[in-house]
Amino acid sequence: MENRIQSWITTVSLSRPTLGDNTADADRLVIKLKKQLRTNQIDIDLLLLKKLPDILRSCNYSVNCILFKNYEHWILTGITSPNDPSLITGMAVDLGTTRVVIRLIDLVSGDFLFESSFDNPQIPIGPDILTRIHYADTLQGLEELNHLIIRKLNTEISAICQSCKIRTENIYLMAVAGNTAMTHLFMGIKPNFMIREPYIPVVNTPDTMETEKLGIHINPSGRAFVFPNVGSYFGGDLVAGILYSQIYQKEETAILVDVGTNAEVVIGNNNWLIACAGAAGPALESGVAEMGMMAAPGAIDKVTIDPETLTVTAHTIDNAPPIGICGSGVIDLAAQLFLSGVVDIRGKLNPSIAGSHVKKTDNGLVFIVTPAKESGTQTDLIINQADLDSLSRSKAAMYTILETISASVGINLSELATFYVAGTFGSFINPRSAISIGMLPDLPLEKYVALGNSSLGGASMLLSDRSAMDEILKIKDRITYMELNVNQDFMNRFSAAKFFPHTDPSLFPSVKIHSGNQAKPV
Amino acid sequence: MENRIQSWITTVSLSRPTLGDNTADADRLVIKLKKQLRTNQIDIDLLLLKKLPDILRSCNYSVNCILFKNYEHWILTGITSPNDPSLITGMAVDLGTTRVVIRLIDLVSGDFLFESSFDNPQIPIGPDILTRIHYADTLQGLEELNHLIIRKLNTEISAICQSCKIRTENIYLMAVAGNTAMTHLFMGIKPNFMIREPYIPVVNTPDTMETEKLGIHINPSGRAFVFPNVGSYFGGDLVAGILYSQIYQKEETAILVDVGTNAEVVIGNNNWLIACAGAAGPALESGVAEMGMMAAPGAIDKVTIDPETLTVTAHTIDNAPPIGICGSGVIDLAAQLFLSGVVDIRGKLNPSIAGSHVKKTDNGLVFIVTPAKESGTQTDLIINQADLDSLSRSKAAMYTILETISASVGINLSELATFYVAGTFGSFINPRSAISIGMLPDLPLEKYVALGNSSLGGASMLLSDRSAMDEILKIKDRITYMELNVNQDFMNRFSAAKFFPHTDPSLFPSVKIHSGNQAKPV
Repeated sequence: MENRIQSWITTVSLSRPTLGDNTADADRLVIKLKKQLRTNQIDIDLLLLKKLPDILRSCNYSVNCILFKNYEHWILTGITSPNDPSLITGMAVDLGTTRVVIRLIDLVSGDFLFESSFDNPQIPIGPDILTRIHYADTLQGLEELNHLIIRKLNTEISAICQSCKIRTENIYLMAVAGNTAMTHLFMGIKPNFMIREPYIPVVNTPDTMETEKLGIHINPSGRAFVFPNVGSYFGGDLVAGILYSQIYQKEETAILVDVGTNAEVVIGNNNWLIACAGAAGPALESGVAEMGMMAAPGAIDKVTIDPETLTVTAHTIDNAPPIGICGSGVIDLAAQLFLSGVVDIRGKLNPSIAGSHVKKTDNGLVFIVTPAKESGTQTDLIINQADLDSLSRSKAAMYTILETISASVGINLSELATFYVAGTFGSFINPRSAISIGMLPDLPLEKYVALGNSSLGGASMLLSDRSAMDEILKIKDRITYMELNVNQDFMNRFSAAKFFPHTDPSLFPSVKIHSGNQAKPV
Repeated sequence: MENRIQSWITTVSLSRPTLGDNTADADRLVIKLKKQLRTNQIDIDLLLLKKLPDILRSCNYSVNCILFKNYEHWILTGITSPNDPSLITGMAVDLGTTRVVIRLIDLVSGDFLFESSFDNPQIPIGPDILTRIHYADTLQGLEELNHLIIRKLNTEISAICQSCKIRTENIYLMAVAGNTAMTHLFMGIKPNFMIREPYIPVVNTPDTMETEKLGIHINPSGRAFVFPNVGSYFGGDLVAGILYSQIYQKEETAILVDVGTNAEVVIGNNNWLIACAGAAGPALESGVAEMGMMAAPGAIDKVTIDPETLTVTAHTIDNAPPIGICGSGVIDLAAQLFLSGVVDIRGKLNPSIAGSHVKKTDNGLVFIVTPAKESGTQTDLIINQADLDSLSRSKAAMYTILETISASVGINLSELATFYVAGTFGSFINPRSAISIGMLPDLPLEKYVALGNSSLGGASMLLSDRSAMDEILKIKDRITYMELNVNQDFMNRFSAAKFFPHTDPSLFPSVKIHSGNQAKPV
């Protein structure tokens, strides 16, 4: 069955009131809307109610109604004349810890009108979410963090409106997807209990709110929907991702992974969904000590190493002189080092193979990725053993989580129909490299699908297609969160997965282990 | 079946979150409340959500929840500790055109804690509602009227809180009953189209609103319910009256009448309700030209006339020297004048019987009620022929409306089980007098029941008993508004009803027409 896209705008033509049919304006409108939308309750925003009689009369009782929902419950948030040429828009927001992305959407056509992004203004208070959660321990700290994000969003909204030549009043709806802590901070709600046993958020399923109450300046009758989270470590951004990936609609079982400092995973199909999350450490997000950096101009994002000459070819973002390495670069680099034998299956640098490409420093062995003379920093860009150890723990955590969740439902990773990798970072990972180091399972490459910003994608879907609200409800109801029990079994799997690609190479048949480099007894 | 009174407060004891049961605070609370209240959606006010985690923990997960409803849809508006000794209260408001009455109610026990009233602060702009509706033609006028009532309510609320030694935060709910124009002005909504064909209000069924948005300063998460109106001329005050009278629950058909400048009538039983309203003119509310006044000290409220001597005995409010006559007094006076033969069945003063009690003035014949030497004004208090003519039109309109509505459902007025008279004015009318002049039907006196302030009574019921919300929904759904068609048939009835008591005396067998006073051919 094909899903027809249904916008949040409903056109209604009311019969004009007469002496024989003198139902009040609002009741007349609501009765008609209830019939058209097949619902039994529609709330009207009070501000809108005040404007209603004049709008209805000036439009001769034919109007466009902009609606939104608090799950099953409709709210009328705007009424415009069919002759009004102004755009009717909504704003999808991916509320990232690091980066916030806004997309302006035409609610009539579903077209994307504009996209812009900015660094999360809370970063100066704490680059990582944990620091921010601690900072929000006091009401003052919470309010400061809240005001930072709200103010910046308002500034950005103004700028977008100027670029698109619309007024803020033309933005009626807002869909916000973010991790649990970020959405708590956005709503001004304490995230503090999330990091204290038993680690619970204040709210998993916030009601659709008035943007005015959130301090967001769009249409004064505007409403914001914040994607529900499944728990402290599985946020609305992932729920938006599930919506976007549509794994919940398919018969075949698929997996969706968001790779980052936390690895969030959901596995399932049109019958069930199991989610879990676990710490993978910062290494996968380029949190390597020596040369790690965010994806930005000059960051090495792709690496190849000639297995014969060990010559490193590094691609950088914008082809700028290399100044560091980002997440996808690190995974490429580790894979290439391993495949060329420079790193052994224990993840250790092997000087007997690396030759002059490694040097000894006070911090032990390091591998020179870009020598000083070619680098943008005039110093050697290097990766050290500690970085590699950290990476091996991170990739092992990632793989162990995948193994554990699939084992919990009796499914072998090889049986998965599709392996979705979410997030901007996911889009840049070379799955071949991730497989080579044993971070992702050894599936045919065509099974890997990069979703891009699936959080923004899901938020956008909700604004373009009102039926998505029901889908979110389905996802929310269907999803089971599995607590990752870090027990002996998990630790055993983890220890095995720390090897490159794994202690059991039969799990990674496509990965060719360098002849001169076999595991030595530890 | 006995109806158990259910308060708006629900005590919940939640299981404490654990690692094995880490549902978020809000979701944990809502799941439990949904189960206890047997509903599938409960909204939480955002301000409350922010305070939730600390309240839950400080109360060890056992709390009192203060809820309210937007018809079928629940809203959580307050959470308190069971150990908090503060009162949890609500405020019932009778929003009269002339007088506003507030009653503070203990939401736990349903007890009435305090009552106070004040003149509607909009009176200086227009004593009657029509003038105010015209004044609200401009946005500025509308806002001025709105601010007047809101400001005065806030002042009064502060004063009540001081008297009762509570904080405004201890008031969580508000139930407002008023006529359609008054509730529109209270919500800041244009009433203007109500007086232009086809005479429709903006809204019949307002959603339960945030008091904050209305500008009312009670608990910042407080909610206000405004009783729905049936139409421009049949307001929420009457719907509250129906709730209070309980005629919608009884098997026997009864009638409820609010006597005033507008006569609002509802007839029905537990199966159906028919409502109508019509202009009765100001005469019934003491809008008589010469000596009419509001019920206040010095107003004559009861009159007897010795049929032999024609001596007038007038009772005044507070036994003050008479300075005028109020509505109930006018009806008594007219009845006594008629029964003593001073006024004939056409409603005309009969000088041949009245003798020295009438005198001729430039305005025609007048009857002296209180001579100058006994009056508080040092002038004769008189009623003139024009006043009597106006009264005869008003009482005829009242009776014709009653006849028409009962005829429309094929019921004879004599078949009514109970005749409820609503309103403060209704409480003071002597039914015997009203029957004598043919304003009310000639039923056994025990069938007449004065309801007092049924608007305030209904609003109070809603606050003491949450099941009343469902009853309001039932009333709203069951009621049919009948447009009073002023056709030839109506005019014929009206002409007959202008006589004292009626052209057909068989309709008023209990009224003894004075022997010396029979109708002369007109």
